[in-house]
Amino acid sequence: MMSALIFCEVNVSRLSISARQRLYHYLFDLKTRSGRRFEGLCGLFALLSVIIIFVESGAGTQYHLTFDEWHVFVWLELMVTLVFTGEYLLRLFCWPNPAKYVFSFWGFIDLATILPLYVMWLWPEISLDYVFAWRAMRAIRVLRILKLLRFMPSLRVFWQAIMSARHQLVLFYSFIAIVMIVFGALMYLIEGPKYGFTTLNASVYWAIVTVTTVGYGDITPHTPLGRIVASVLILIGYSVIAIPTGLITTHMSSAFQKRQFERRCPNCQQRGHENSARYCNRCGNELPD
Amino acid sequence: MMSALIFCEVNVSRLSISARQRLYHYLFDLKTRSGRRFEGLCGLFALLSVIIIFVESGAGTQYHLTFDEWHVFVWLELMVTLVFTGEYLLRLFCWPNPAKYVFSFWGFIDLATILPLYVMWLWPEISLDYVFAWRAMRAIRVLRILKLLRFMPSLRVFWQAIMSARHQLVLFYSFIAIVMIVFGALMYLIEGPKYGFTTLNASVYWAIVTVTTVGYGDITPHTPLGRIVASVLILIGYSVIAIPTGLITTHMSSAFQKRQFERRCPNCQQRGHENSARYCNRCGNELPD
Amino acid sequence: MMSALIFCEVNVSRLSISARQRLYHYLFDLKTRSGRRFEGLCGLFALLSVIIIFVESGAGTQYHLTFDEWHVFVWLELMVTLVFTGEYLLRLFCWPNPAKYVFSFWGFIDLATILPLYVMWLWPEISLDYVFAWRAMRAIRVLRILKLLRFMPSLRVFWQAIMSARHQLVLFYSFIAIVMIVFGALMYLIEGPKYGFTTLNASVYWAIVTVTTVGYGDITPHTPLGRIVASVLILIGYSVIAIPTGLITTHMSSAFQKRQFERRCPNCQQRGHENSARYCNRCGNELPD
Amino acid sequence: MMSALIFCEVNVSRLSISARQRLYHYLFDLKTRSGRRFEGLCGLFALLSVIIIFVESGAGTQYHLTFDEWHVFVWLELMVTLVFTGEYLLRLFCWPNPAKYVFSFWGFIDLATILPLYVMWLWPEISLDYVFAWRAMRAIRVLRILKLLRFMPSLRVFWQAIMSARHQLVLFYSFIAIVMIVFGALMYLIEGPKYGFTTLNASVYWAIVTVTTVGYGDITPHTPLGRIVASVLILIGYSVIAIPTGLITTHMSSAFQKRQFERRCPNCQQRGHENSARYCNRCGNELPD
Repeated sequence: MMSALIFCEVNVSRLSISARQRLYHYLFDLKTRSGRRFEGLCGLFALLSVIIIFVESGAGTQYHLTFDEWHVFVWLELMVTLVFTGEYLLRLFCWPNPAKYVFSFWGFIDLATILPLYVMWLWPEISLDYVFAWRAMRAIRVLRILKLLRFMPSLRVFWQAIMSARHQLVLFYSFIAIVMIVFGALMYLIEGPKYGFTTLNASVYWAIVTVTTVGYGDITPHTPLGRIVASVLILIGYSVIAIPTGLITTHMSSAFQKRQFERRCPNCQQRGHENSARYCNRCGNELPD
Repeated sequence: MMSALIFCEVNVSRLSISARQRLYHYLFDLKTRSGRRFEGLCGLFALLSVIIIFVESGAGTQYHLTFDEWHVFVWLELMVTLVFTGEYLLRLFCWPNPAKYVFSFWGFIDLATILPLYVMWLWPEISLDYVFAWRAMRAIRVLRILKLLRFMPSLRVFWQAIMSARHQLVLFYSFIAIVMIVFGALMYLIEGPKYGFTTLNASVYWAIVTVTTVGYGDITPHTPLGRIVASVLILIGYSVIAIPTGLITTHMSSAFQKRQFERRCPNCQQRGHENSARYCNRCGNELPD
Repeated sequence: MMSALIFCEVNVSRLSISARQRLYHYLFDLKTRSGRRFEGLCGLFALLSVIIIFVESGAGTQYHLTFDEWHVFVWLELMVTLVFTGEYLLRLFCWPNPAKYVFSFWGFIDLATILPLYVMWLWPEISLDYVFAWRAMRAIRVLRILKLLRFMPSLRVFWQAIMSARHQLVLFYSFIAIVMIVFGALMYLIEGPKYGFTTLNASVYWAIVTVTTVGYGDITPHTPLGRIVASVLILIGYSVIAIPTGLITTHMSSAFQKRQFERRCPNCQQRGHENSARYCNRCGNELPD
Repeated sequence: MMSALIFCEVNVSRLSISARQRLYHYLFDLKTRSGRRFEGLCGLFALLSVIIIFVESGAGTQYHLTFDEWHVFVWLELMVTLVFTGEYLLRLFCWPNPAKYVFSFWGFIDLATILPLYVMWLWPEISLDYVFAWRAMRAIRVLRILKLLRFMPSLRVFWQAIMSARHQLVLFYSFIAIVMIVFGALMYLIEGPKYGFTTLNASVYWAIVTVTTVGYGDITPHTPLGRIVASVLILIGYSVIAIPTGLITTHMSSAFQKRQFERRCPNCQQRGHENSARYCNRCGNELPD
């Protein structure tokens, strides 16, 4: 694989720059129709490959697969890996700045999710011997789902809302963390290791599960005093449950308004376009993202 | 049963059109008082039949019913089936376009919920031998409750709200789905099959149950690292829990306003009637739905 | 006890009306300071008696009480019962219309919560033999806590809000009920009695516990298909969880505004007083409740 | 330790007042840069010491620590205790009014969290013999996390919001408490001790866990009637879950506005500064907290 990469790099330097640019423009530039289509194709393929992994994972536990049935999944995975390897090499080849791509979030995800099969091929003794390694490879392959995040540019607004509310969120979560640690310590003291409050860590985990009203029930108070303390913690959690959402939604609506105000048509300078608008409603010019 | 249907069809062609129209007008037209009464009667009957099924289901497990007691339930079911068969044939006979009714949602529900007893009568060996078939018939009969949806025209506004918020809802649920798959894969890797994280599917199911704060507790993390990852997922879920409701309520209120603005009296053209108004408050004319 | 009641009634007819009126005015009229004090005293006493019952219930299970310790609780209960019997007779005696009091909600509660000890005294064999009767008496005595509702006149606004939102609430809960019954039937069909889905009733109970995000975990899906259906139901519940609260809070705020607008000073006719105001802020006159 | 304290006090009286004042100004006055830095250092140290306790608590249960590994934790704790003892003595020495500090919330926390090691050193038999004492010491040491509350002055606004909403909150929680007690008594009556409803207290604990949608599942109804009553309680809880948060957020936003209006620049008397502002945006003067 290393040699293939070097070979590819050598080839790149020999090709004219314009060919790379044309390929980039054709395949990866989201402003062209073909670029958007290729992007959609890659996304669909990633989704399909994840569905195959889930089917494989479910089938492997429920039924005893015959050797032939396992072969189907191995061949499917081989095909998927080859396609994604091709996509990765194409991106490396076409990108204006390949190093930047390799060390970006997307480059890391694209590389990591094609590695499992190569690792299994190069060091077969790992995947045969260790159950953990087998699980790890399956878990890594599922991360292909992260490629779909490319289709959600609107999440940027959500992220901006979290960023602008970060002071209040940090304050709120710090306070809740202190409450949870204090109540965790109290319950560790009162209940003891008999009913699951074995360590301070387990007690704080219990407090998190309780305050957020998840309530698994794997660790629960059994002494009268413990139940009273737990009830107090539950009522505190009940009273503050909607505060983080309130903070995020308030900041999200102002982030939407801000974006609406700031986005300006590069042609006629008009502001106030809808967030979902892609063309200026006065002069028809394309709007910046 | 097939012959009865054919016979009925033959009869229909012989009758004058006006008789069918009159019957439709009298029984199924919701603009007439008798139509609304018949509709209400059918709804009440559907509700009663569902209550009977629940009593039967509960009694069958709790107590050992004698043969005579079972007979009561069988006779009740027979009566209910006959009444609904009559209603179905009446609708077939009266409807302006019977084919449209048969292939509509209501036609499908009306037909499906009368079939179990006929299937049991025609192929008694199914219902006697297979426990699953018995459960299936009971489950299908309970779908009669769906007939009550006819009484909830206001749900259309709710549906419109979901439709107008669908882009944001799809975006939100896609993002949450990606988060759940990534955390599911992580937990599958960390915890392993010892405490219920047997497959990727089970891990993602755990993530859904956790993010939404349901927290059954059938699958829970037990390793320290797993508990830390679970806590992070819980706090993410805690922060975003009210976002979908916020989206739906916002769009619902604008859907209500839009309907209020758009509904216009056909006589005096006035707009802005209350959503629950049935007559124009200026000229007394009936308003469109 | 019966004879005591008759005796009391006879006495009442002999006394002058004015004495009864004065006593009512002095003890039960909330417009006088002594009336409010007596009311507060009764409330405090009810609260204390409930706390004693909880201590008794907790002590009875945790420790083996000696005969002497039980005697303390019996004597305390005897004292409490005598005091409340006195209060009940006083109310009967003083009330302008005793029959109306007896058949009111408060009369029923006041009577029911003093009966257990008398029943135990008259038919001791009940309380000694049947564990259920013992539990029932304790449970009935705890209903004394309902007497504290007398101190919450503001709940009327809450009640008005629910009443004015009742159409939408009934619609919402009907729709959710239909969803829960349909999903319950589906899960009854898919999962079967192996993991707790024994009857349709249990399945619908599971659906209620799931949609509201309570998630006990006593009944959980175990088949892959069941988990998918459960996930869909969870996500539906997750999306609609805040709708009833939204409805109630909206109507509650308008109920508060309406009350603020409608309450009018009987002296200077000014409107718009604060909801918690007890005196007109223009002329100092007492405001109606 | 007592003698050390006395010695310290004696020293204080000998030193000139100005030295104490200068030290206070330098170390504890948050208006000076060095004061804020020292405060930050203490906070960071408290956080570190709590993390060490969690690592120690987790390590002690998961692995069998060798004697040497335990020694590391003991030495770390010794160091932390000495540092905090030094901080406590410094504060005692520098504070304008030492008695006020000692009996304040912070003085109590600062003292309590350094005591465990000294108790262990003076009465080693306690910590060796009793598991509970060992747990208690660890739990007390974790309270050092409360020192971080010093960095959250904004919580005062939150506290003001709770205070101004206290009438409505008390009313709401009283009503919910009555509902929970009544339903707890009902379930105690219906279900009985077979499935965990052993006492009235346990039943009310179950009601709290249910109404707040935590739903541990350690106590769950199993009889048909019990499940119906539980469903009613769940739906009541489902309808009122967001009311306390609504109350708090409403009052919090008005508390923020009030603070913004009331804070006035001591130099130019301008009002309406941002809540997070530390200097007047008109004249640059420092604003009061």
